[in-house]
Amino acid sequence: MAEFDLIELIRDRCAHTRADVRVGIGDDAALLAVPQGQLLAVSTDTLVEGVHFPRDTAAFDIGWKALAVNLSDLAAMGASPAWASLALTLPAARRSWLAEFIDGFATLAGQFDVALVGGDTTQGPLSITVTVHGFVAEAGALRRDGARVGDGVFVTGTLGDAAAGLRCVGDSDRRGTAELAGLPTDARAQLIARLDRPSPRVAQGLVLCGRANACIDVSDGLLADLGHVCAASRVGALLLADRLPASSALLTLPDDSQSLLLQLTGGDDYELCFTASSAAEPDLLLDLARSGCAATRIGTIVSGSGVVVHDDSGAPIDVARVGWQHFA
Amino acid sequence: MAEFDLIELIRDRCAHTRADVRVGIGDDAALLAVPQGQLLAVSTDTLVEGVHFPRDTAAFDIGWKALAVNLSDLAAMGASPAWASLALTLPAARRSWLAEFIDGFATLAGQFDVALVGGDTTQGPLSITVTVHGFVAEAGALRRDGARVGDGVFVTGTLGDAAAGLRCVGDSDRRGTAELAGLPTDARAQLIARLDRPSPRVAQGLVLCGRANACIDVSDGLLADLGHVCAASRVGALLLADRLPASSALLTLPDDSQSLLLQLTGGDDYELCFTASSAAEPDLLLDLARSGCAATRIGTIVSGSGVVVHDDSGAPIDVARVGWQHFA
Repeated sequence: MAEFDLIELIRDRCAHTRADVRVGIGDDAALLAVPQGQLLAVSTDTLVEGVHFPRDTAAFDIGWKALAVNLSDLAAMGASPAWASLALTLPAARRSWLAEFIDGFATLAGQFDVALVGGDTTQGPLSITVTVHGFVAEAGALRRDGARVGDGVFVTGTLGDAAAGLRCVGDSDRRGTAELAGLPTDARAQLIARLDRPSPRVAQGLVLCGRANACIDVSDGLLADLGHVCAASRVGALLLADRLPASSALLTLPDDSQSLLLQLTGGDDYELCFTASSAAEPDLLLDLARSGCAATRIGTIVSGSGVVVHDDSGAPIDVARVGWQHFA
Repeated sequence: MAEFDLIELIRDRCAHTRADVRVGIGDDAALLAVPQGQLLAVSTDTLVEGVHFPRDTAAFDIGWKALAVNLSDLAAMGASPAWASLALTLPAARRSWLAEFIDGFATLAGQFDVALVGGDTTQGPLSITVTVHGFVAEAGALRRDGARVGDGVFVTGTLGDAAAGLRCVGDSDRRGTAELAGLPTDARAQLIARLDRPSPRVAQGLVLCGRANACIDVSDGLLADLGHVCAASRVGALLLADRLPASSALLTLPDDSQSLLLQLTGGDDYELCFTASSAAEPDLLLDLARSGCAATRIGTIVSGSGVVVHDDSGAPIDVARVGWQHFA
């Protein structure tokens, strides 16, 4: 399959367009109109096979996820998605694989009104770099450095599912002997779906815009990502373990301390973790629930630095001791 | 070297900033201000080791070239460069390699007032995807589809040098037994420099803005790239072989037909090929010469389709016959 045919196939299957795309795929650069008074939000993420998704992941899911993780970054800024470019490096251009990949990408792009405006196709080991563009008003943008002492700490959706899903399929392929292979079939399917087709919380980011004090998406695990917010804001955070939201699927795990660990340290959930004042809390939680993805208060911003987790007796939990190494 | 250290090193060594970067590296997305009345021009190119640059290319040159090929795309639209994001996949994070790579990238970025605003670092086979952003007024943008019958066809600088440089170093490493190893040392050095450190014709693109009728950068070879302009504009082009500009280094090649072939089909020159009316020609050529890189008229846009090359007797040259296969 020649590069030209490949580009034609991508263009045909990802044909969603927008009026603000003045020149799209097919010239030396795309020409795009940013609305007056809005900032341009830009984020780039690369997915490498075997690192960011297990080998043998379905092509549709890889295409979906490559866009989803980028849209999640826009969501974490409170931005409206608009355009994407796709740099695709493929070992061999199999038409069926590429068609499924692009269908996964295009399905999510259509849901969020994202136009594919350019990119590059090259031959090499499978890797996908997507750059997404969105808009946000400067005053409303959600940054990492705005958390204030006394803010509540919140998270959308549920935590730990994607990491549990990875343990269901095995780390390096889809047939691995998995620690969690004994779970009920529908719980397994639910967890694996969270891993393969994350839902970027774009609508929730727009609800938070101008109302949350700080926000980040949970891609590397709650402790790591909330740690970035604390460091940027020069504050600490106190989390309550029994407040961490868990899906019904996660609750089927045999070991509670294992579930807690996945909630605290598992990556790939792409939920939004944000902080907001107590005054803003009631309306925010109501509006988020109405948006289709409720949020949960899981703790409080405190003075100091770092993230501490308390159990229901108020004693600090030593995350390393309960088994961090086990999953590292 | 941990990812965090890697990002710190990149940020430290690529510290050029701009007032329109409201949030740069370090949040979920960059926040950027596009000037009112300007379109955003966006282009993405991936470089894969062994495909887009020979193995053992100096790290500095890889960093330079990764940005240069992208700036060349902005130049071909007549856009002013502003921001770049860098997605870097590295087999192992050697500090010295990375420092040199970033110095190459940053040196060129500084020359063109480009701020690095984000990106991603991942582990895997060496590959670099850069996305560049620039500005252009809609009315002045240089597209591929504006060539008109009667336009002159022009090219900046000289052609064929980078392809000759590739043949000096050998295709897959820097020590290959090269066909052109017998050239004078300084001619070899000049040709290899064209391969390793291309000069994006940004200033020339700005001169052409609103004055050329069509423009493309010569990345895949003159015939292929001018062919794209002709197809998009639904016209043909007639080129005169003896008008094709050659550097003094290229003139040291032992075989004239080999030089001609490199000028017509060699990639990686990153010159601008453009068309303009006869009325615009004199002033344009004067302004381009003043900009530091003169352009040469090499032919005429004609009705029909495709690109034809004539020798000095007016007879068509069969490019395939003079040796395309030899270099394929």
